[in-house]
This record gives sequence, C-alpha cells and structure tokens, in this order.
Amino acid sequence: MSDATVTTPAPGHEPFDAVDIIRTKRDRQRLSSGQIDWVIDAYTRGVVAEEQMSALAMAIFLNGMSRGEIERWTGAMIASGERLDYASLGVPTADKHSTGGVGDKITLPLAPLVAAFGVAVPQLSGRGLGHTGGTLDKLESIPGWRAGLSNAEVHDQLASVGAVVCAAGDGLAPADKKLYALRDVTSTVESIPLIASSIMSKKIAEGTGALVLDVKVGSGAFMKDLDTARELARTMVDLGADAGVTTVALLTDMATPLGLTAGNALEVRESVEVLAGGGPSDVVDLTVALAVEMLAAAGRPTGEDEVRAALADGRAMDRWRRMIAAQGGDVDAPLPTARATEQVVADADGVLARLDAYGVGVAAWRLGAGRARREDPVQAAAGVELHAKPGDVVTAGQPILTLHTDTPERFARAYEALEGAWEVAPPGTAVARGPVVLDRIH
Amino acid sequence: MSDATVTTPAPGHEPFDAVDIIRTKRDRQRLSSGQIDWVIDAYTRGVVAEEQMSALAMAIFLNGMSRGEIERWTGAMIASGERLDYASLGVPTADKHSTGGVGDKITLPLAPLVAAFGVAVPQLSGRGLGHTGGTLDKLESIPGWRAGLSNAEVHDQLASVGAVVCAAGDGLAPADKKLYALRDVTSTVESIPLIASSIMSKKIAEGTGALVLDVKVGSGAFMKDLDTARELARTMVDLGADAGVTTVALLTDMATPLGLTAGNALEVRESVEVLAGGGPSDVVDLTVALAVEMLAAAGRPTGEDEVRAALADGRAMDRWRRMIAAQGGDVDAPLPTARATEQVVADADGVLARLDAYGVGVAAWRLGAGRARREDPVQAAAGVELHAKPGDVVTAGQPILTLHTDTPERFARAYEALEGAWEVAPPGTAVARGPVVLDRIH
Repeated sequence: MSDATVTTPAPGHEPFDAVDIIRTKRDRQRLSSGQIDWVIDAYTRGVVAEEQMSALAMAIFLNGMSRGEIERWTGAMIASGERLDYASLGVPTADKHSTGGVGDKITLPLAPLVAAFGVAVPQLSGRGLGHTGGTLDKLESIPGWRAGLSNAEVHDQLASVGAVVCAAGDGLAPADKKLYALRDVTSTVESIPLIASSIMSKKIAEGTGALVLDVKVGSGAFMKDLDTARELARTMVDLGADAGVTTVALLTDMATPLGLTAGNALEVRESVEVLAGGGPSDVVDLTVALAVEMLAAAGRPTGEDEVRAALADGRAMDRWRRMIAAQGGDVDAPLPTARATEQVVADADGVLARLDAYGVGVAAWRLGAGRARREDPVQAAAGVELHAKPGDVVTAGQPILTLHTDTPERFARAYEALEGAWEVAPPGTAVARGPVVLDRIH
Repeated sequence: MSDATVTTPAPGHEPFDAVDIIRTKRDRQRLSSGQIDWVIDAYTRGVVAEEQMSALAMAIFLNGMSRGEIERWTGAMIASGERLDYASLGVPTADKHSTGGVGDKITLPLAPLVAAFGVAVPQLSGRGLGHTGGTLDKLESIPGWRAGLSNAEVHDQLASVGAVVCAAGDGLAPADKKLYALRDVTSTVESIPLIASSIMSKKIAEGTGALVLDVKVGSGAFMKDLDTARELARTMVDLGADAGVTTVALLTDMATPLGLTAGNALEVRESVEVLAGGGPSDVVDLTVALAVEMLAAAGRPTGEDEVRAALADGRAMDRWRRMIAAQGGDVDAPLPTARATEQVVADADGVLARLDAYGVGVAAWRLGAGRARREDPVQAAAGVELHAKPGDVVTAGQPILTLHTDTPERFARAYEALEGAWEVAPPGTAVARGPVVLDRIH
C-alpha cells in the first residue's frame, strides 16, 4: 500500500506536487501563496488533473479557506488569463453581478439606465444553468441579437453606447471557466470561498472600476438564509476592495419571484415595460436601488428621484434601443410567443399568502426556459407569468399563473414543481410584504 | 450559476446521478445501498468520471462512512469482478494480509510454513509503492521467479504445493484497482473506510476461507497510533465476518524495522535464514504467531511449539523450495548483490536507544529498493542492513547500518532520510524492548 506521507517527486521541474497540496487542505492546514499560485496555473496548463482539482475542491468545500487564501486564489484565477482595462474610455465604469434568482431580469433595464448617466457598463455574462435562467438567454429571444463580441467590439460599444451585455470571452479567468465546469459535476458548487473567488475573478478581470453585487436570499436563490448570504457578500466586497474595485453588495429578497415573469422573452417584455416607465414595482425599485449604488460607486452620486426620472422620460429606453441594435437585435420585432399556454387558478377566495420562487423557477425551467445541461437549447417563449403576488386578494377560479411552452408535454412536470409552491389564505389574512432590499454590505 | 439542489436528469437510463451521490456524502448523509451499488458499478463502467469519484472519495475521507455503508461498498467492489473459490481443493485455505511495514518479509517464510500443515495459502498480492516495499518485488529478486499466474495455475499450484504468492489478476475487484490508483494521486489514501474496503474486497474476492490481518502500528506504518490501528482492524474483521471469512487481526509493532534487513534480495536472504531454522527473533516470533492464527482460523489449531518445529526440521523450507520452483525461481542461484555499499557507524559508546522504521524505510526506498511511481523499476539488491536493534550495546565506530545500492549517487539522499532516525544513549541506559504483537482483534 502506498504511503502518502512520502512525497512523490513532482514530474518534470514543477516546484510543487498536487498530492501535497490536496493533503494540506484535507488536513485543515492553510495553503501557501506559492501552492495556490502553482495549483491554479498548473491546473490551467493541464499538469494538475481534473480528478486532483475535484478532490481539492471538495476539501475546500468541507474545510474552508481563510480570507488570505481566498484573496490569493482569486488573484491566481485572474492571472490565468487576460485583464481588460477601459481607462482609455475616459469615463467611469460600473458593473452589477447577481448571484441568480427567479425572474431576475434586472440587468436588462439597469445597464442602459446607468449608461444614461455617463457611467459605462461592461457586463460580461455567462449562460444560465438550472432554474435561475441567464441574462444572455433572455436577450437572445430578441430577433437578431448576438451575445458574442470581441474585446475590441466591447470597447467600441462602450464608447458609442455606454453599455454592453455580452458573453465573457474565453480569455478572462480561464482557470475559473475550467473549475466552474468541474464543480458543476462534482457537487462542489455551494461553497462561499469557491463562489466568491469565481465571481470576483471574472469581474475583476473584466476591468470594471466599480461593482455592485446583488446577493439573493431565499428559496429561489443559492443562499437560503441571510447569514450565509451576508458572509458571501462580505467575502466578495473584501475581494473587490483588495483588488482596487469599489464594491458594494445589496442583499435582496428571493423568497418569491422578482416581477411578474420568469422566462426569456417574457422577461424581456417586462424589462421593456420598466424602461417605458411602467412595470412591476419590485422590479422598478430594485433596478433603481442598484443604479443608485452603481452611480455612487463609480463616483457619480445621483439621487433616486433623478434615476427614476430617466426611466420615466425615455432616456434609459433610448440607451436600451441603441444597446440592442448595436448587437444586431431588432428592437421593434415582435418577441416570440409560446405555442401552448395553460393556467393555474386560485382554488378559493382569499389572499395569496405564498408564491415560492424555487417552485416557479423549476416550473419555468421544465417548461423549456432553462437548460439541464450546458449544451441544451432553451425555448425563447417558455416560462411562467404571474397574475398575483403574495398579499394580493384573489377569488376562486381567478388565474394565478399562466404557463408558456412550445412543448405541451412539459406541462405535467411543471405542475409537479408547482405543487405546494403557492397558498391562498382565508380572506382578510394579513400577509406582510417586506422590502426587496434586505441589507447592504460595503 | 447552476443550482445543485436541482437534480440534473441522469444520462441515458441510469437510475442514479453521481452529482446527487457526491452531495449526499458531502452533506454528511448516509449513502443508500442502491447508491453505493450503482456508483461502484458505474465507476467501473466509466459512467461515473474519475473527477466525480475523487470528489466522493474526499467526501468519504472527511465525513466517514457507517459500518453498513462500508460493508455495502466492499460488497459492490467484490461484485465488480470475479470471485475465486477453492472448495474443490478439499483442504482449508488461509491467507495473511499486512498493512505494510519496513522490513516486513513475513509472507515469505509464512506461506510455506502454513502450507506444511495442510492448509493451502493463496496469497494474491500487489506491488509496493512508497517506503514499505512489496512482497512481489522481494520475490522477483530470485532469478527466474515470475509473479504472473493464471487462475488455473494458481489452483494447480495450491493443489500441488499448497502455497502460492503471485500478482492478483485483473479480474479481482477491478473497481478497487481503479479507485486505488485514483486515491494515490488525490490524497485520499489514509481513510479507514477506504483502506478497509480496499483490502477486504480483494481478499474476499480472492476466495480464502480464513484471513489473518497484520495491522502495523508505529512510525513505519500507515497507522501511527494504536487506537486508529484498532479501529481499522475492527472494521476489517467485521467485514470478513459479514462475508463469511473467518478473520482475525494482530496489531504489531512497526516503530523499528522488522528483522535486520529492508530491501528486496536482502529480505529474501533473511527469510531463507528463518526457513532454515535461524533468523532474527522478531521475524521468527511474528511468523510463528501469524501461522498459529492462520491454522486456528482455518480450523486446524496447532500449538506454537509444533509450528516452530516445522521451521527447525526443514518442512517449511521444503515447501518454500517447491513454491519458488513452481513459479520458475532458481532457489539455489546466488541472490543479486549491490554494486556499492556504505556504512553508518555509531558515534559513541552506549546503547542503541532508537532506530526509526520510517527513516530506514525511506532510506531503503531512496537507495532503489522501492518505487516512487507505479511504472518505476526497483533495484533487487538495494536496501538497508541493520547491525544493531534498539536495546543493543554499541561501541563508537561500530557499524549500525550498511546501505546497499547499484547507484551510489543515491547515498546522499539516503543519509538525509537517516538524519535523526537513530540515537545512541549513554552506556547502561535501560531501553525497553516490547513484544512484537501488541493486541489481537477477533
């Protein structure tokens, strides 16, 4: 039997050995800066094997990392690729990152809204996987719109329009790209050190000057409780500060879906309503709150009323139209609609007491709005439309949800996901409607 | 960001998903029998990827397995391959397994000794890796001897000679073979559930009727303390009993090397001395103790004196000669000797207070007796010869060790391993010599 206390000489002239590094974290010891730099670099080069990185990821998941280790780990992932820089634009830059929620279309109205105040928004995004959907999938429901831009195209669009939402290029934090795919198949996703370093390495490499984090809390989010969300937010805000990126986090409610739609085209439609000065109040409130934070973090402090005015008077809509058109999207083309719809109706008179974000998210996903595997296509028109939110009075037989899909055989599994996900309380029951923003970490 | 609480549909028609199984153990929950059977089978088939199994192994390492989980895991590894059966021999069978120690050549005199009493010994072994050496490497220093036998050859040799020491075929517990190689590169070796299931799956599949385990304790062993060794022994004894194999474990001392040699040809020479009725007393005592246990476990209880007599009167030596010859070995050919030797001498008059097994093991390994990687060759003649054991009186300048190697440039690194590994106490110091056998678990 081999004895792992004997160090196997590293192949070639590598200064460290993956087996030692895994053992260090396994035994709850601190990884040295040299170990971290090497293991990320060697993993990117393929010298550290996937099975070694997954064992290390599980050891990190279960034994954690110190503040210093996380900072170094993030830095090593940034160093694995290129780091963009928008200094030549001559304007401040700000970006927003959400940890993912059901009906979270905030990026769509937010990016053009902030750009309307002269702060450039370089939003380099990933695809959605699972029930929370992805911003790129939403925008791709607009006929002609394309997610892939070169670094030069991103730069040009920031100069001309002031906002870009596109796919992050392969050059940004390639170590994170590889590790993220690995974590997905090895149950090592929900780890604060690994989540924080993954998000922040991409955002810091992206080159934004300021960053506002929307950390979701509740059934539809990764973080189910406020304490864990606060810890994740604190970790990311510190990582941003360490890297010279002004970073603020809002902790926001994800117990019930955001707005009245979860899906791709459905959410674009709702976003356009917000840009036209209307839309559901929770979506508007959160968009405005995040815009105020981004402008302040970018050194252009702006009052809430002024921000709301830019939604009401068409300035944000104008940026939106230019932003979509710059990436080939036809803003005036009709959005796709689903081949089939079915309705979920209230079973009694009363007050909608609960409408669970996770249940709605899984239903939308099963209807075709999301993907189970990275290579799966999504349906542009699939999703769930809400006709009531918790606290609203409902009458028996009134539609609460409309389900949309191009593949009606999916309705059955969507209904399963919605079982127990909503509840009508007797008439007159008081249902508290809390604020969307729960806390702020800076 | 993907959400791991959503179950990704398993590819094809697999009844389980590896990601769920990893998460179960990661979250300190018990794996079901169905999950264990599937994950071992799917790993053997290549449906569960190496990086998934390594994440699971790390979760098991850190979160443990229950008695029931270990039993099922072992059973699933046995079921991944063939299970041998020697019922047609018409004699009882018994095997011994050592967890590995420095200078542990006991298998060599033990197998023929037990066979001399009419109990067949099918010892299917692996190669050594690291500082503890391997039985097959030792026997391969005998000119002509070959480790590879077919199942039919093993059966025939058991019928004709009563003992066989050979390489385990690829058909036995292939899941363990794959997992063992993976654990080696992912720092997931020293886990009691994984060690116990690995050893016992091979031994149960091998088809022995009785099994005696030699669990080493001390600096030169895997298990550094008696409590951990006892837990490992208890786990393995229970697994044997569950599978209908009478199993007993001796916990034996590995603070200092066993006998006076560590190496391949050097240990064969010492084993032949024991078979000729001589040899170091600790090697003889342990060989006899294990033989008594094996004979009792196989239903042929035999007194210690009778066993010792078989070493003294040549019966064991006769079996040895037939056993080696049956596998092509030339028992009368001279054993290889090293091209270079150097001596380590006592630095003062006094009593040898300590001679550390780990230091001697690493020195022998670095001199060429062991391998760092599975594919490395070993030197037949390399190793360390001891001229004194703890408790022996020594005089300044007297040789304590002789180092043997074919590659003298290795001496320097062997000396490094021996730094601080031995100590001469002032004349008259009392040095306790404990028994070799520390405890017995049945």
